Amino acid sequence: MSSKSCRFCSKPAVLRIRYSGLPVCKKHFIEYFEKRVFRTIQKYKMIREGDKVLLGLSGGKDSIVLLHMFAKLQNVLKFEIIPFFIDLGIHLDDYSKVSGEIVKKNCEKFGLDVIIVKILDEYGFSIDDIFAKKLRRPICSVCGLIKRYVLNRKALELSVDKVATGHNLNDEASFLLQNIINTDIDLLSKFGPIQPAFEGLFVSRIKPFFETYEDEISLYATFKNIEYVDVTCPYAKDASTLQLKTIIANLEDIRPGAALAMVKGFYKKIKPLLQSIGEEKMTKCKICGMPTSMEICSFCRLKDRITKTNF
Amino acid sequence: MSSKSCRFCSKPAVLRIRYSGLPVCKKHFIEYFEKRVFRTIQKYKMIREGDKVLLGLSGGKDSIVLLHMFAKLQNVLKFEIIPFFIDLGIHLDDYSKVSGEIVKKNCEKFGLDVIIVKILDEYGFSIDDIFAKKLRRPICSVCGLIKRYVLNRKALELSVDKVATGHNLNDEASFLLQNIINTDIDLLSKFGPIQPAFEGLFVSRIKPFFETYEDEISLYATFKNIEYVDVTCPYAKDASTLQLKTIIANLEDIRPGAALAMVKGFYKKIKPLLQSIGEEKMTKCKICGMPTSMEICSFCRLKDRITKTNF
Repeated sequence: MSSKSCRFCSKPAVLRIRYSGLPVCKKHFIEYFEKRVFRTIQKYKMIREGDKVLLGLSGGKDSIVLLHMFAKLQNVLKFEIIPFFIDLGIHLDDYSKVSGEIVKKNCEKFGLDVIIVKILDEYGFSIDDIFAKKLRRPICSVCGLIKRYVLNRKALELSVDKVATGHNLNDEASFLLQNIINTDIDLLSKFGPIQPAFEGLFVSRIKPFFETYEDEISLYATFKNIEYVDVTCPYAKDASTLQLKTIIANLEDIRPGAALAMVKGFYKKIKPLLQSIGEEKMTKCKICGMPTSMEICSFCRLKDRITKTNF
Repeated sequence: MSSKSCRFCSKPAVLRIRYSGLPVCKKHFIEYFEKRVFRTIQKYKMIREGDKVLLGLSGGKDSIVLLHMFAKLQNVLKFEIIPFFIDLGIHLDDYSKVSGEIVKKNCEKFGLDVIIVKILDEYGFSIDDIFAKKLRRPICSVCGLIKRYVLNRKALELSVDKVATGHNLNDEASFLLQNIINTDIDLLSKFGPIQPAFEGLFVSRIKPFFETYEDEISLYATFKNIEYVDVTCPYAKDASTLQLKTIIANLEDIRPGAALAMVKGFYKKIKPLLQSIGEEKMTKCKICGMPTSMEICSFCRLKDRITKTNF
């Protein structure tokens, strides 16, 4: 709590916007937050009138708050929201079940039906199955691959214009740090708030929280009494991405605004210099028809490995 | 202490080389350390036969250990070491006095005379004077400017071939993080273990500890009973660069080898893509003749500001 008054009214401030230093009350924080997200969408031309936007919902604060933002902006920006949930089949802590219920509850509030894909029903395996196989690749990395695949595949099937995800500024700063450490030029060259579509292979992806801090999303959810899944995925508890996010949080503590400066600066000035391997080298997977740089895409190879009993 | 045996002999290991995981005894750590520094010098072609190398000594562990390494390598690489100490005029904790004495003591061990520049005698002001002026620019940043200026100026006066400094891997990783946050493309474009000379303006600069972790330098100093100044400069205690170095240390804890991967990867793959503002745009300062992109160099402007009593 700050003892100052809100910069926009006489009420006591409840927090300071860290990187600007402005003290704000609850009402003006909400206003600031919503305006910020709206401006990000406009600045990067994320949504056009008439767009069908598939919104990937995990049940976590980011995607659920994004649903609420979309519902609020739907009439201004005139686009269609298609909520989408992937049931990953995680039984520990009832994780997938609870997540699905919270997603449905939030969608119902806005009279929206959520499309659900149960990966066990659709592809014959679950994240639990993958965990049981003890692959060498970290489970979060495999899960990320599956989610990107299923999201893009559904987006192509439904012929939507965009796929939106709740990735926030802290996710993006961690991604940068991770790939600067690994010097993964190809991944760094794809860094940004919006990914263009690529003819029949990739649907355009947008990240409206590209410039929004994670803790502001949490605060917005609290102030607006938004219900979301507040527990970490049981498999992700020691995830190295979470450790990197702690590093980003520490950095932000000593240099307020560092993550924002890094993400915006890298996107504007360094990313344009990096050469992507290029979607033009992509072909269609011989099994599923989804994009791949090899004959068989990594999803189909994974599926084969998991579902073949004797492997 | 590790309970394992040294990878190279049967003696108990005293530590693990973190990023390789190899357990080593004291003797083999020393061997590994010296070989590593030698290889860095060779890999980046830092020193040629017959080179006169001006070695900037602060009295801290990095530059003092570098002196010891140079003394050891002098006969192999056949070059001349010219030790150099800048007396910054810091009276708090007797900092400059103690540092100067330790530098002299270490040089005497190798029968080397150290060249000393007292900035108060040579330029009419000290770091104490600068601190008293309460400039807006952080004192460490001003001090860095002064040290770079005096070092380069002395190197030009003495017509040496190289200037060597004790910057270590952690310094370099912090520099990267700092300038990625600031998106300072010009500084990032100059990142590296060796800076080329530029006709009468800049003497080539080399950093033999570019790929050596700070804690390994400390350990080497301890094992070899090397005496160095073990206190932080009294003005630097809250320096933001020290905070960034803590972030790098945290990162290294969760990802052993991350700083090395980042520094090597950035230098090899990203730096070549960045455009430098370029030394060709440099001219000679109208007052002192040292390089500047303006009429008067930043050192002379600083000097003017500090030494004019009514400013």
